Amino acid sequence: MKITIFGLGLIGGSVARDLKERKFADYIYGVETNPENAGIALKMKIVDEIVGTAEGIDNADLIIITTPVDATISILPKILDRVTTQTVTDMGSTKERIVERVKLHKNRKNFVAGHPMAGTEFSGPAASLSGLFEKKTTILCNIEDSNEEAIGIVRKMYAVLNMNVVEMSATSHDVHVAYVSHISHISSFALALTVMDIEKDEKNIFNLASGGFESTVRLAKSSADTWTPIFMQNNNNVLTALNNYIDKLQELKIFIKEHRVAEMHGVIKKSNRIREILNK
Amino acid sequence: MKITIFGLGLIGGSVARDLKERKFADYIYGVETNPENAGIALKMKIVDEIVGTAEGIDNADLIIITTPVDATISILPKILDRVTTQTVTDMGSTKERIVERVKLHKNRKNFVAGHPMAGTEFSGPAASLSGLFEKKTTILCNIEDSNEEAIGIVRKMYAVLNMNVVEMSATSHDVHVAYVSHISHISSFALALTVMDIEKDEKNIFNLASGGFESTVRLAKSSADTWTPIFMQNNNNVLTALNNYIDKLQELKIFIKEHRVAEMHGVIKKSNRIREILNK
Repeated sequence: MKITIFGLGLIGGSVARDLKERKFADYIYGVETNPENAGIALKMKIVDEIVGTAEGIDNADLIIITTPVDATISILPKILDRVTTQTVTDMGSTKERIVERVKLHKNRKNFVAGHPMAGTEFSGPAASLSGLFEKKTTILCNIEDSNEEAIGIVRKMYAVLNMNVVEMSATSHDVHVAYVSHISHISSFALALTVMDIEKDEKNIFNLASGGFESTVRLAKSSADTWTPIFMQNNNNVLTALNNYIDKLQELKIFIKEHRVAEMHGVIKKSNRIREILNK
Repeated sequence: MKITIFGLGLIGGSVARDLKERKFADYIYGVETNPENAGIALKMKIVDEIVGTAEGIDNADLIIITTPVDATISILPKILDRVTTQTVTDMGSTKERIVERVKLHKNRKNFVAGHPMAGTEFSGPAASLSGLFEKKTTILCNIEDSNEEAIGIVRKMYAVLNMNVVEMSATSHDVHVAYVSHISHISSFALALTVMDIEKDEKNIFNLASGGFESTVRLAKSSADTWTPIFMQNNNNVLTALNNYIDKLQELKIFIKEHRVAEMHGVIKKSNRIREILNK
């Protein structure tokens, strides 16, 4: 199968590696607007060839969009304008705005909206990893709007990536990821900013980071290009989630302020339940 | 050297392992009020013998307190009441209340206040690890109130644990850890609670956790017995840090709400600086 990947970053690069190594792809075209990333992807043999948009579309059996979600909104309709029999899928962290954008497109059925839940805090093709998706979950949204053939090809691709496929509406997807992924990132960005504002001596941050800070702040290393449009596209759900999170922080603050030891102990115990949930 | 460890949890157990393996300790006595943990520590040969408080004090050259910080406040004066030439140190995550408690004690000079910045989200002697402290930083506080001999023994112990020693006042320590350690934990507890409140279907949390949630929420697995008294003892600094953190979240919220893309991008870029700071 010939595959074109739009956007050769962490996700696009990692997908390319696995699909090539596992022989799902015979030949991979890359479309990449950043010449530096295009050069790295070619040099690392992540893709076989860098091509322009039209050639990328025309030559492929399967087109995978792994750009930041603002770029996806803008290029997806253009790709669908030009496809004939090709399957198109995306891997963006928001889904509602993306499916909304092409809802009435004549080739909507060629498109399958997806979101593999995998990543690291790094970005760019040099950060791509083999096996990044292994045994994790991917979400396919609104598949009633896609044709059988396209769904079949995308499912096959995720089987090759060894991912567990879950189906969901784009609306539900965006609510769930606001809580489970998007506010995790915001809490981490805010924590990094707070600590850097206060701790003028960076040596102290470095020295004391093993007290828990390092893991909570890991996501604060994530790309601004990737995350800014995610928050903007999923703004309503993210704002609701963020309000709930701030309310919870205020509640804990009151327990500390009023020395309500038993209640503080109780909520920490309750939060410990996350261990069982994550080990399920 | 004969060592007595009060409190055989994650930290006490891990200290015992390294000091024994590295021949700094010839014999380790454990004092532990929880009979289950005492049994595990003995069975795992983390300590050579479980003894009562008086015997633990009388038999030791060095006494290490690794209990939750509320227990430290209560047993430290009793231990100092009874010591003659023994060195006493603690490893608690708060320092100001602890040094304040024994400020006027006749044997204050036998005590060295310490805080090795190391740990995991797990607790109890079964969670103890060899090499937990390796190449991390430990903080010694108000050492002008300790005698030379005691400081020498504690420094030697941290050299054996292969830790980098930093000196600081107890007051500064408590401010720094409020930012770099304590609010990390609060942000994580609050995130776990928020997500569990909203996501009634735990299967969704589990499926979507690799979207960043898993690492941000790791600390939410931490012990309520350990963390409740830390927050209560360091309440003023923690409340200030928490207010700053909530202000930062409110700022990000406004950027999202008002679709201020450039400003959101700018603060994420700024928070990315944490990568360089942590890699120093």
